[in-house]
Amino acid sequence: MNEDGHKFRTGWLDERTVTVYKPKPEHMAIPGFVYGGLLASLIDCHGTGSAALALHRKNGHEVGDGAEPPRFVTGSLHVDFLKPTPEGIPLKAVGTIHEIHPKKWRVETEVFAGDTLCAKGEVIAVVMPSTFAVK
Amino acid sequence: MNEDGHKFRTGWLDERTVTVYKPKPEHMAIPGFVYGGLLASLIDCHGTGSAALALHRKNGHEVGDGAEPPRFVTGSLHVDFLKPTPEGIPLKAVGTIHEIHPKKWRVETEVFAGDTLCAKGEVIAVVMPSTFAVK
Repeated sequence: MNEDGHKFRTGWLDERTVTVYKPKPEHMAIPGFVYGGLLASLIDCHGTGSAALALHRKNGHEVGDGAEPPRFVTGSLHVDFLKPTPEGIPLKAVGTIHEIHPKKWRVETEVFAGDTLCAKGEVIAVVMPSTFAVK
Repeated sequence: MNEDGHKFRTGWLDERTVTVYKPKPEHMAIPGFVYGGLLASLIDCHGTGSAALALHRKNGHEVGDGAEPPRFVTGSLHVDFLKPTPEGIPLKAVGTIHEIHPKKWRVETEVFAGDTLCAKGEVIAVVMPSTFAVK
């Protein structure tokens, strides 16, 4: 519902998940490079999206079958920045998903710019508590 | 130099550092709440800014004395999300800085929305390598 949000879209690639995102000019850190917060945001949203896909599939559903996917929030986020990330090319986040228990999933993510592994991340995603009420 | 950047500004508060930032409407996750990526970005930039202030002071300088402060990049970022973060009120990041060695600093940060501790983070900040050339 956020018109100016990043609108990350996460999908399956075999047993892994993929989010592709092209940073915008306002995401530069210094000229030529993407700022770390954008990579952290990508890993964060890719993590919760991946967990949602995995639980949805475990519940017998696939995106588009009409059932509402579960929603997750981020419990914790860790990012290791490995290489400066060039701007102007799409970033690809590839995730591997581990079930800790049905309401808590761990997603390990690698972010590539072209063939270069720029960052690695881990998200602990938890099913959105009912107290996290939408106004 | 990024007109659309967050433009976080970090300053001293005794031996700790503070960054205050008011999220914008486009930073909402679901209506009423700030998205985690913004908190991660705040902790990231607060961490590198705090390390720059600390090394600058160690080198005998204060902001505004004419000397160019050192620049840092983020080696790693960890965020624990503790509470949903309400939108519409300024966030305050408060940092405690530890020198690991002169080119590598650890910054522990707490992010408050009003009196509520919403997130805790840790950044390992390293002096920007000369290979990270500005175009």
